[in-house]
Amino acid sequence: MPGHIVTSYDTDLENLRRSISEMGGVAEKMTAEATDALVRRDDTLAQAVIVADKRLDALQRDIEERAVLLIARRQPLAIDLRETISAIRVSGDLERIGDLAKNVAKRVVAISDQAPAQKIVLGVRHMSDLAEGQLKDVLDAYASRDVQAAHDVWERDGEIDALYNSLFRELLTYMMEDPRNISFCTHLLFCAKNVERIGDHTTNIAETIHYLATGEALAGDRPKNDASNYATVDGVPAP
Amino acid sequence: MPGHIVTSYDTDLENLRRSISEMGGVAEKMTAEATDALVRRDDTLAQAVIVADKRLDALQRDIEERAVLLIARRQPLAIDLRETISAIRVSGDLERIGDLAKNVAKRVVAISDQAPAQKIVLGVRHMSDLAEGQLKDVLDAYASRDVQAAHDVWERDGEIDALYNSLFRELLTYMMEDPRNISFCTHLLFCAKNVERIGDHTTNIAETIHYLATGEALAGDRPKNDASNYATVDGVPAP
Repeated sequence: MPGHIVTSYDTDLENLRRSISEMGGVAEKMTAEATDALVRRDDTLAQAVIVADKRLDALQRDIEERAVLLIARRQPLAIDLRETISAIRVSGDLERIGDLAKNVAKRVVAISDQAPAQKIVLGVRHMSDLAEGQLKDVLDAYASRDVQAAHDVWERDGEIDALYNSLFRELLTYMMEDPRNISFCTHLLFCAKNVERIGDHTTNIAETIHYLATGEALAGDRPKNDASNYATVDGVPAP
Repeated sequence: MPGHIVTSYDTDLENLRRSISEMGGVAEKMTAEATDALVRRDDTLAQAVIVADKRLDALQRDIEERAVLLIARRQPLAIDLRETISAIRVSGDLERIGDLAKNVAKRVVAISDQAPAQKIVLGVRHMSDLAEGQLKDVLDAYASRDVQAAHDVWERDGEIDALYNSLFRELLTYMMEDPRNISFCTHLLFCAKNVERIGDHTTNIAETIHYLATGEALAGDRPKNDASNYATVDGVPAP
């Protein structure tokens, strides 16, 4: 009964989509809460983020397994094959986003006894707000198969990178002004780097949506503004 | 002619293995050369590493595409399915290792005009030597399907993490001693973090070899020694 097979295949695909959507929800929440925990110095919330990552890892393994079995059993072609490959890719990116949020949460625990320096923490907050917004938009674009919305997210990755770049310089300057800031600011540097990488994985998802809809890789270089790999801070007075 | 199909399938698998081996060679070379470039402050070598990453990206996309087509067309089961899935996973890890080596190379360009501080750079060299050795061992284990050798690599990831942890503290102390070290040491911190993550991806490959051979995920938590997410440096004299 081919009709039965088709229906069951559609159900499998629908279930994959639902699991991706669940992963997306968990990853969004972890990203938001890791930054909340950082801003509020909330160890309990940070621990909750660390624990939530296990759920995300389990979901990803499950999606990967089901998607591969689906490919092996149903031999999907064209759009159906892309649908299944995309599920594997998106779940991989969401799993990585969870890892990055967890890394931020771990650093919250590390710096919970250190001076606030709220101004700099708010720089990370601002970056994270941008990253969360783009993650939400890309997950909506994936759910509605909206290529244009995915392109919009892809174009905007440069904003997070530019913010990271300016925060990187600000943190370096702050460390040079007063060595007591070094330990704290180093952790913030890694937090900011993690948020910047959350933006990268969001951009990956936008590229996957393009591939899903068109069967082609998204052409052109990413609109990168991250020069921090090359950044040094000059003109800082020697102590 | 089923005989023909089997032969062609074996050829496809053999070609996948060959491409993975090529990727492994490129990733190993990039990892070694990125650190060489850092130690010697060799901008030209660093640029070569950055360029080599494009080759690795192209190889990975190609492997992923061929592996998925193989699954869809041949419907492999059991060991053959695992073989193909493992190729996708290993190529993904090697691509990430290339990205991390490229990130180190980019920082070499950033700090090429800064004071040597050779002692600290050699700490990164030491970490990188360990990571290169484990990458080589895991690629050999993958080529020879040697599960025991893969387990040995898996057990040793803690060594790189422990080294990273001690280097992290050393770099923080060094920054606090003299703020002129801050910019340089921050870049080294990220270099060390990149090497530590190369070790993580090497461990992923060891886990994939276990899965390939046994069909099971490697049980137990990783032998992690990385406490740097939690690390702070105390007792440093205020300036």
